[in-house]
Amino acid sequence: MQSIITLTTDFGTQDHYVGTMKGAILSVNPAAHIVDICHGGQSFDLLDGALSIAQAYSFFPAGTIHCVVVDPGVGTARRPIVVETARHVFLAPDNGVLSFIYDREDRVAVRHITADHYFLQPVSATFHGRDVFAPVAGYLSRGTSPSVMGSLVENYVRFATSKPRADRDKKLVGVVLKIDKFGNLVTNIKSEDVSALAQTLSPSYRISVASKEIGGLRSAFADGAAGEVFALFGSMSLLEIVTNRGSAARILNAGRGTEVVVELFVDSKTEAD
Amino acid sequence: MQSIITLTTDFGTQDHYVGTMKGAILSVNPAAHIVDICHGGQSFDLLDGALSIAQAYSFFPAGTIHCVVVDPGVGTARRPIVVETARHVFLAPDNGVLSFIYDREDRVAVRHITADHYFLQPVSATFHGRDVFAPVAGYLSRGTSPSVMGSLVENYVRFATSKPRADRDKKLVGVVLKIDKFGNLVTNIKSEDVSALAQTLSPSYRISVASKEIGGLRSAFADGAAGEVFALFGSMSLLEIVTNRGSAARILNAGRGTEVVVELFVDSKTEAD
Amino acid sequence: MQSIITLTTDFGTQDHYVGTMKGAILSVNPAAHIVDICHGGQSFDLLDGALSIAQAYSFFPAGTIHCVVVDPGVGTARRPIVVETARHVFLAPDNGVLSFIYDREDRVAVRHITADHYFLQPVSATFHGRDVFAPVAGYLSRGTSPSVMGSLVENYVRFATSKPRADRDKKLVGVVLKIDKFGNLVTNIKSEDVSALAQTLSPSYRISVASKEIGGLRSAFADGAAGEVFALFGSMSLLEIVTNRGSAARILNAGRGTEVVVELFVDSKTEAD
Repeated sequence: MQSIITLTTDFGTQDHYVGTMKGAILSVNPAAHIVDICHGGQSFDLLDGALSIAQAYSFFPAGTIHCVVVDPGVGTARRPIVVETARHVFLAPDNGVLSFIYDREDRVAVRHITADHYFLQPVSATFHGRDVFAPVAGYLSRGTSPSVMGSLVENYVRFATSKPRADRDKKLVGVVLKIDKFGNLVTNIKSEDVSALAQTLSPSYRISVASKEIGGLRSAFADGAAGEVFALFGSMSLLEIVTNRGSAARILNAGRGTEVVVELFVDSKTEAD
Repeated sequence: MQSIITLTTDFGTQDHYVGTMKGAILSVNPAAHIVDICHGGQSFDLLDGALSIAQAYSFFPAGTIHCVVVDPGVGTARRPIVVETARHVFLAPDNGVLSFIYDREDRVAVRHITADHYFLQPVSATFHGRDVFAPVAGYLSRGTSPSVMGSLVENYVRFATSKPRADRDKKLVGVVLKIDKFGNLVTNIKSEDVSALAQTLSPSYRISVASKEIGGLRSAFADGAAGEVFALFGSMSLLEIVTNRGSAARILNAGRGTEVVVELFVDSKTEAD
Repeated sequence: MQSIITLTTDFGTQDHYVGTMKGAILSVNPAAHIVDICHGGQSFDLLDGALSIAQAYSFFPAGTIHCVVVDPGVGTARRPIVVETARHVFLAPDNGVLSFIYDREDRVAVRHITADHYFLQPVSATFHGRDVFAPVAGYLSRGTSPSVMGSLVENYVRFATSKPRADRDKKLVGVVLKIDKFGNLVTNIKSEDVSALAQTLSPSYRISVASKEIGGLRSAFADGAAGEVFALFGSMSLLEIVTNRGSAARILNAGRGTEVVVELFVDSKTEAD
């Protein structure tokens, strides 16, 4: 029986919240193996939480239970849900924080968790991480089936995950989704989006961030001179704007939502041939 | 045999200190299950450490060993202690950091740890987390009894945990104890303090922070308009001053020690009836 | 079979990187016991990573696998290596981040990891923590021998770890290596360096930081008045510049590289005797 439970929250690590959730899990299943994905995102930031779990989940063993608690609507009508995919189980508030999982997985079974005898009673209106998600994760890790937690629902919340638009010919317009700890700008432009632009064998691209042209497409962080900003496809096959041993975000003064354009560069001489 | 050990410190996570403590625990008991409560509090801040462990400990299984190392007096005469309560064991310097535990638990047995053959020798004057508390936690988690660690003491340090005062009739005056990661102001006013103010069935309250009136008592974070500051009873039944998806601390420019007043609001028309 | 794996990185804890590495380890060995040493150092800072692992590793049980990923050259020609010492195994990029380990350990066997069938394929150019070091750590923790990972190399990278110089007679000139979370300045001056200065029984010293004299040598953080800056030998026997319940770094406005001088203080009256 697999008993890995991951935690992704916006709780930070300076307060007791994450530790308390772990206590509530271990009170149900002392043998649970709890793993932190991250807790330090912007408070209340669904997109940040959604990206973090999407980038990490598939690297965990089959049977892992992923508990995602970014939950500004805690205590209101928003539902707690349990989601089964081919290899994993997810617990989260039904607020869209699993949108990228829905995008990536072919089949998802989403249930509204209503079996409140699994909850820590009395359930507070402000900390369902402790009172709802932690004990349910504990029971699931002991082998309780997601199917007993509640009925299947179809109208679960899914936000539109922004996709780059192909602006006229040979041009992609995307945006920065997040800035990571190193100051890399992670965009919503995928490697397949970019390769779809070109039919030539060794295409080259002109890349600009907030209308300012940067260096071209390289493969590693160290492939640039000091202070030079350039692009590469990061570990999730998303285009990232980076610099060697520095913060591209600081150099460009760019942030979430900044526009990033990739344009196929056509050598006029070649075209004349 | 239960072997969960929790850690609450002010060591932060950018240095090696917490990892080194874990190594010292695992060198004594490789099977220990170590859980972080938090490490990011203000340096040297006994109140912050005391609140963190108080809010988390009871959610852990019986038999958990809680190791609390906020220890500005390390290397001086202050004693290391082991404290047994009905369900848990605590290790800490005897500086008051367990004061809320003493308040909450009916029976506590406090011992001065003197059995230095359990320590990592030579004991440094600056890192008892590693040299004293970690190995003792390791031995306790292997089943060594707290009673062999030293003699019972009665004169352990306990700071007065501030309680709200009832100022004249129908009015409670409390203070902000801490600001959490979200910017919520956690006060020392308990739900029973407030309900003791009123004999009526649906009382209403006027709440002010640093003499400025805020919105009333609600139940969930999402029960307020953007930018509106209001109150609720948080997950520890303490009154919190909050705002929906934002930082009440920033909006009010308030911090630890800020005065918070709860006053029973008497509708003059009703009273006239 | 020992299966403790420690992680020391510059990945921070606000992104998914550390969690993803843990997933990749657990996918190879679900029973691995993963322990964080620290992740919050300055980005790309080899010295900081090198110090962290050096200060923590020896406190872990024999057989522990230490995975150190501070890797600004990821995706370039720098080699991944596995290092065996008498009691531990280390995984890291070959960029000098293990220099203090080479200094401390009598015998090290360093191998270039080339057995890419242990890697997560396809290997990205930007996240070898996930694709190379995590799975190799997983296999080692399952009992795979380091010897099958690749051939021994002699020309591994080792940076000169700065040592204090004895400047003329009775004087040591060192530097600040790092500032810790508390604002303590950790220097490269060891207790044996200082004791070598003096042949007398109770020597006293004059200590200055950036040419400004500070209080003398004490033993505990609490051995100073509020705001007074003084020195002690910290938990790694390195001279630290500290203050009681405050940040020496802030008071002195000092940082990495600041010069620290220890001079034997000779009482002229005694000398005249």
